[in-house]
Amino acid sequence: MSKVLIANRGEIAVRIIRACHTLGLATVAVYSTADREALHVQLADEAVCIGPPTPVKSYLNQDNLIEAAKMTKADLVHPGYGFLSENADFANKCEQNGLKFIGPSSQVIAIMGEKATARQTMKEAGVPIVPGSPKGFVTVEDGLNYAAKIGFPVMLKASAGGGGKGMRVINKKEEFTQEFTLAQQEAQHAFSNNEMYLEKYLRHPRHIEIQLMADQFGNVIGLRERDCTMQLNHQKVMEEAPALIVDDATKQKMLEVSVKAAKEINYEGAGTMEFLLDSPGKFYFMEMNTRIQVEHPITELVTDTNLVELQLRIALGEKLAMQQIDIQSRGFALECRVNARGAGKITALHLPSGYGVRVDTALYQGYQVPPNYDAMIAKIIVYGHNRQNAIALMKTALDETVISGIQTNLDFLAQLLEEPLYLANKIDVNWLEKLTKGI
Amino acid sequence: MSKVLIANRGEIAVRIIRACHTLGLATVAVYSTADREALHVQLADEAVCIGPPTPVKSYLNQDNLIEAAKMTKADLVHPGYGFLSENADFANKCEQNGLKFIGPSSQVIAIMGEKATARQTMKEAGVPIVPGSPKGFVTVEDGLNYAAKIGFPVMLKASAGGGGKGMRVINKKEEFTQEFTLAQQEAQHAFSNNEMYLEKYLRHPRHIEIQLMADQFGNVIGLRERDCTMQLNHQKVMEEAPALIVDDATKQKMLEVSVKAAKEINYEGAGTMEFLLDSPGKFYFMEMNTRIQVEHPITELVTDTNLVELQLRIALGEKLAMQQIDIQSRGFALECRVNARGAGKITALHLPSGYGVRVDTALYQGYQVPPNYDAMIAKIIVYGHNRQNAIALMKTALDETVISGIQTNLDFLAQLLEEPLYLANKIDVNWLEKLTKGI
Repeated sequence: MSKVLIANRGEIAVRIIRACHTLGLATVAVYSTADREALHVQLADEAVCIGPPTPVKSYLNQDNLIEAAKMTKADLVHPGYGFLSENADFANKCEQNGLKFIGPSSQVIAIMGEKATARQTMKEAGVPIVPGSPKGFVTVEDGLNYAAKIGFPVMLKASAGGGGKGMRVINKKEEFTQEFTLAQQEAQHAFSNNEMYLEKYLRHPRHIEIQLMADQFGNVIGLRERDCTMQLNHQKVMEEAPALIVDDATKQKMLEVSVKAAKEINYEGAGTMEFLLDSPGKFYFMEMNTRIQVEHPITELVTDTNLVELQLRIALGEKLAMQQIDIQSRGFALECRVNARGAGKITALHLPSGYGVRVDTALYQGYQVPPNYDAMIAKIIVYGHNRQNAIALMKTALDETVISGIQTNLDFLAQLLEEPLYLANKIDVNWLEKLTKGI
Repeated sequence: MSKVLIANRGEIAVRIIRACHTLGLATVAVYSTADREALHVQLADEAVCIGPPTPVKSYLNQDNLIEAAKMTKADLVHPGYGFLSENADFANKCEQNGLKFIGPSSQVIAIMGEKATARQTMKEAGVPIVPGSPKGFVTVEDGLNYAAKIGFPVMLKASAGGGGKGMRVINKKEEFTQEFTLAQQEAQHAFSNNEMYLEKYLRHPRHIEIQLMADQFGNVIGLRERDCTMQLNHQKVMEEAPALIVDDATKQKMLEVSVKAAKEINYEGAGTMEFLLDSPGKFYFMEMNTRIQVEHPITELVTDTNLVELQLRIALGEKLAMQQIDIQSRGFALECRVNARGAGKITALHLPSGYGVRVDTALYQGYQVPPNYDAMIAKIIVYGHNRQNAIALMKTALDETVISGIQTNLDFLAQLLEEPLYLANKIDVNWLEKLTKGI
């Protein structure tokens, strides 16, 4: 029997452990001292403490993770999302230590992780890209030169980044130096890397992404698209599938270029091609996430697939059993990310369930939410006949959810579901930020 | 806005309340004094106490229910399953009081509720029936005469019955008088009706049933079949869909005769035609349940429909939006009924969730399970690619379930999933009883 070490925590660790057990794979959880009582520790077959609460000393501590895998004789490592999931060094260390890293090769992670290289690679593979700096840079002078060529407004990003850290929209030349300095500091702090890059900033884009799955034999399927336009400070808030805003021909083209690109870079495992949809039919590559994503369940619901199971099967050397023609989209799925606002003990918990409702979480009544990690504590996912029905299901689900003992964004999510522009599906990626700031 | 009174409790009341809210319908819960803190009371828009814990004084108290509906100005009454859901008098009282009873007319309930009449009606509609007594009877002499004509072994049932109460297999003439007397007493006690009827007892039958849905315009669809062969003391324990044991031609025939019969009796709403499958291709009508059933979620999962929503839409006068051709079966669904063994307070609760898992329950941590009602406290339902995958998902789900403070059948369910004959799908309706008795 193969054994999988899950190099993560929270709901995604729980999600992976369940998928492993359903496939008959043994599991090893890892945990920081803040997570001794965490659900993923309780559900796994074995658990190893890998350090103190600070992420860099535990969930980002590569040596401790490799040691835990060796000690428990694990064969595979599932990195989940966040933490080391897109860290080429870690993937490489796994490879060097005879551990199968569940995901693409360390080389592919490195290419896609470095934003400028990723853009160049995608451009060569025939994927449309937003005009941007041809490479990463670290000085304000280089930045100003590139920005002048692209034309303001520009979007500044951390080369090694993700999750909105180190990102800034810069509207004019005069703001550049100050914004660049702040963003670079943020990048240095978050990723230990101060390289930045620039892109043309699009005024009213929507965020549309394509889910990919590739086996070790060169077979790649596109599991249709997701619409993740509802964002706040570059963090996704709600996601839906299918993307009703995109016409079928454009969807087909996005899917085709994504699959083709994945084939060209010898991709393996789950991956997501993120695009900005500018005007109808016009889309640009933003980045590729070389891991499972938070919002993967909505794709699972509309395409009737188990993405984490597929990740595991592929890592174990199985061929993809389905072909592109088998991947149909049906119904409508919606996900809300429930965030904690601060730490604390869950004194009462009632999660929704029943028809069309799925909750992915590591919460339980009595659980102490630690202050050290990501704010997302639960994903409420619904599946209905159509968008209207899914929104109604989500309202009912949010309405009955009780999470006592900590502050959450549940009311905020419920309010969003009442917004006329959201209901009319007429938002862009900046809409929510403007709404919350009263612009 | 229409308002629905839910004349029930427990998970099915919660299921109905959620469906109402998703459709924008207001809800009225009713509760006995034992259920003051029950989840259905908390989730409904309004709640009315209808009496003391004893069912006959509250959930079976027709006058109190009608009064509660009038007082709250409810327009519709959803009876759920059990209690008054198949009580023609209550349906009639609703009709008389201007309340829309969600289900077929009181006449149809009366016909299908009286087993011998139901058999005769079905026979005339072209549905194959098991040889049995041509009508109900109350004396041991009549029973012995009918049994002699049918030939032993025979199955004795309560005319007004359901749920295994008043049911007996009688193997030979010598046992008849004693078994009849006991069964009749049971029937009298449970249903206030001592009429009995007899059927030929089949040796190794499987229980296969067809889900029907009919609107007020004569449109009837068959939402495929369920296999409910896993029974203990005539109570279903686990159910699955589709029924792999039945060949396509037989499934098609079962579906066609069921739809035809429902049309002939002017059926309305959700209903289930229950059959015994004797040898491959040979099936007999057992009974029709004129209500939503406990195991309806497995049909929802494989046919991608929301049966309770359809019940409500139909009761509100909508036409069925789908036709028979639209009803396809996909994947495999499995349900386990979690039963309490005694009352008590739930001191710790962890229910499974995530990919392919649905739990229908009214439990919460801190809830006091009252001793007065049905033992079933939760339904764990999974949906996978195929039977093997669904069973693996169920094992993982049961494995992580924690219900502390009361005894349950969780371990028993988990053990069943390891039984070679179950895994090989080679059981009959008597198998589990023999297994538990060590026969």
